[in-house]
Amino acid sequence: MFSAISYKNDGLHLLDQRKLPLTEQWLHCPDLESAALAIEDMVVRGAPAIGCTAAFALAQFSNESRFDGLSHQAFKPFFNEAVSRLEKTRPTAVNLFYALNGSGKVLASLASEATMDECRRVLDAFAQDLFSEDQKTCLAIGEHGAGLAPAGHKLKVLTHCNTGALATAGYGTALGIIRSLHRKNALECVYADETRPWLQGARLTAFELEKEGIPYFVQSDGAAAHLMKTQKIDWIVVGADRIAANGDTANKIGTYSLAVLARYHGVKFIVAAPWTTFDPTIKTGDEIPIEQRPASEVTSLQGVQVAPESARAFNPSFDVTPAELISAIVTEDGVLEGDYAAAIARHFGC
Amino acid sequence: MFSAISYKNDGLHLLDQRKLPLTEQWLHCPDLESAALAIEDMVVRGAPAIGCTAAFALAQFSNESRFDGLSHQAFKPFFNEAVSRLEKTRPTAVNLFYALNGSGKVLASLASEATMDECRRVLDAFAQDLFSEDQKTCLAIGEHGAGLAPAGHKLKVLTHCNTGALATAGYGTALGIIRSLHRKNALECVYADETRPWLQGARLTAFELEKEGIPYFVQSDGAAAHLMKTQKIDWIVVGADRIAANGDTANKIGTYSLAVLARYHGVKFIVAAPWTTFDPTIKTGDEIPIEQRPASEVTSLQGVQVAPESARAFNPSFDVTPAELISAIVTEDGVLEGDYAAAIARHFGC
Repeated sequence: MFSAISYKNDGLHLLDQRKLPLTEQWLHCPDLESAALAIEDMVVRGAPAIGCTAAFALAQFSNESRFDGLSHQAFKPFFNEAVSRLEKTRPTAVNLFYALNGSGKVLASLASEATMDECRRVLDAFAQDLFSEDQKTCLAIGEHGAGLAPAGHKLKVLTHCNTGALATAGYGTALGIIRSLHRKNALECVYADETRPWLQGARLTAFELEKEGIPYFVQSDGAAAHLMKTQKIDWIVVGADRIAANGDTANKIGTYSLAVLARYHGVKFIVAAPWTTFDPTIKTGDEIPIEQRPASEVTSLQGVQVAPESARAFNPSFDVTPAELISAIVTEDGVLEGDYAAAIARHFGC
Repeated sequence: MFSAISYKNDGLHLLDQRKLPLTEQWLHCPDLESAALAIEDMVVRGAPAIGCTAAFALAQFSNESRFDGLSHQAFKPFFNEAVSRLEKTRPTAVNLFYALNGSGKVLASLASEATMDECRRVLDAFAQDLFSEDQKTCLAIGEHGAGLAPAGHKLKVLTHCNTGALATAGYGTALGIIRSLHRKNALECVYADETRPWLQGARLTAFELEKEGIPYFVQSDGAAAHLMKTQKIDWIVVGADRIAANGDTANKIGTYSLAVLARYHGVKFIVAAPWTTFDPTIKTGDEIPIEQRPASEVTSLQGVQVAPESARAFNPSFDVTPAELISAIVTEDGVLEGDYAAAIARHFGC
């Protein structure tokens, strides 16, 4: 399965998503700092992909020769410092924290006199599992989502940002559903929001759809309302960066706008996300921290200044869609509809 | 008053809006074809500015020495051909057709044996009047719009595209209201949608606001919903390219999206337009022709390809906002609210 993350004997390599679709260039991240910078600078993006990258970065970090011969207890302070560095990269996606906490837990399960070899083995196993589990999860989300399609009708689907192989360990979440619809011959075409300011739709989603031979159009984000009114869109399918205990969903800026427009036009609005994206410790979307990114992302494009030099920008990277605007949330275990709070509480046993 | 259109003894010159805000370069359009291309290629844009440009282009055309000594009757076929060429430039804005018809009417008011001097005089007078009337109209729209502001509260206003001096003969329509609010000290700040694909907001509105010293932020179009939810926007003020007899309003793509979002968030949605933008011959917005522009506007940015080479794009230049989503329409004569159809019929005496 195609993935933009490779962690093998020669270390961690990431497909540089800033250069797609024109250039397919892999970036070697030989140490923790380069992996942290790759997350910050959006070489890799997408909540599940960030999580996998962080887990691999910690496994790779533990392999540094300077830790040879240390005990678990002696390695622990170095590990904690590495986790602190990665925690600071991007605040919104919960998968990052899931990966960091998960790595911390498997390490903590070892006795304090455990050898460095044992530390390395559990961190590597955790990262590899997270990666392969994410691929299986995406396949399951794809199947459950595609199962919602009515028989005998090919769907027109609008999507936002990139939620595909590039945003996950492979296959994708919302784009996984689109892939599964296409495999079932239940897809007419995809409308991909270009997704300013980073253009993940025009650059990354279009790149994946092109590779897969799925028919698609790209459009400006502002065209979505006109599209819904004139082109009979059946579904809007999006991913998620964090889902609160009540179903409120943080996702790429522009998602909330689509949800309001979907309600107005009677279009089904579907969120696709693995359980690792849920954060039951957060009651509602109001508590989700929203990352503000630099003004330059809006005021310049491809390095060319487009607004006056001194222009200020309002540039939140995410927004929150209230649960009441979401028609369904598709997880790897099946489809949640209606009372999200109850279903989420049931899953997490709270 | 600052204007991006200059028609003096040395002919028609347009401030090249494709190069703003980085370069202020005037383009000389010495003949009809160069003026037509300037409209098509968006050297000049904005419904009233296109109308003024077309009227000046016809006046300049009549001054060509090859027509010296012709009678009105002999000049007429040349004039009609020039009108046909300009009609084909951009289909949505009604001001273009108002200017072409108006020029045709003043010419038709002459006897068929009228001299070329007389033809030139009426065409020039019509164009000059249209230009100076548009400036007065914009000032009046600004005053009427600003009059809607509640006392003692500074407004946060969201706007889309460019509706300023650059889009009109000067001062602007929606941006005219913003200018008047600022003069009355009733404006806190402006949020300018960048307005993909042409970035008129980031490039042109920001350029005008910067020059005027009005506080502003630029944001991606997809951020508008989050902005309304988190920043307590008071008004959305937009321009119009054509308004049907029932008040349905065609304007830059993304406007309809804002209107739906405004309704959801309880934000006042105001359209600013001179009576020349109304088209009482068109019953509803469904009849307004919507210009589809090339895919390359979406798939490339500043000449850099951002989507895969073979990507198709959905690229309508305008959308239609139904009258029911519009809180008020501000004209040079005052503010329309409630039953737009009746007010429009009254104005046009139909």
